[in-house]
Amino acid sequence: MARFAVRVDISHLPGVADPQGATVERALPALGYANVSELKISKSIRLVVDADSPDAARAQVAEMCERILANPVIEAYEISLSELAVS
Amino acid sequence: MARFAVRVDISHLPGVADPQGATVERALPALGYANVSELKISKSIRLVVDADSPDAARAQVAEMCERILANPVIEAYEISLSELAVS
Repeated sequence: MARFAVRVDISHLPGVADPQGATVERALPALGYANVSELKISKSIRLVVDADSPDAARAQVAEMCERILANPVIEAYEISLSELAVS
Repeated sequence: MARFAVRVDISHLPGVADPQGATVERALPALGYANVSELKISKSIRLVVDADSPDAARAQVAEMCERILANPVIEAYEISLSELAVS
């Protein structure tokens, strides 16, 4: 059994509106930042998972994303994973 | 003038509670995921900025983080930046 540090980036699928990002982007010129564009706000989840292999860890986190962490109808997720040294 | 793709990761400072992450983590064992720990939810912002140099772009985004994108009292931010090819 090994321990993995996992990072999941959850962003909107292409074509899905990002009202939070759009609101921030609209506010920026009035604050003096007229040179900013394509602002998107998304969510990152970091977690630690115990699994037999990197593949098993990745498969479990993908299942968790489909079931609870993300909304696959409107969100895409990207999983990156690194093994932690056993202490 | 160059164009930079910027990613800002905004997470809680150490010691600041992450109730959203704690709630998700508490729900996981009942869903069959008892091997997950240290779950934290944070925010990522992607944006494009026009600036004279990478240093200027980074300095501007750091100022934007201090002023509006993050709350420096409870949040830490990390800026990563790559130059976009001019099209």
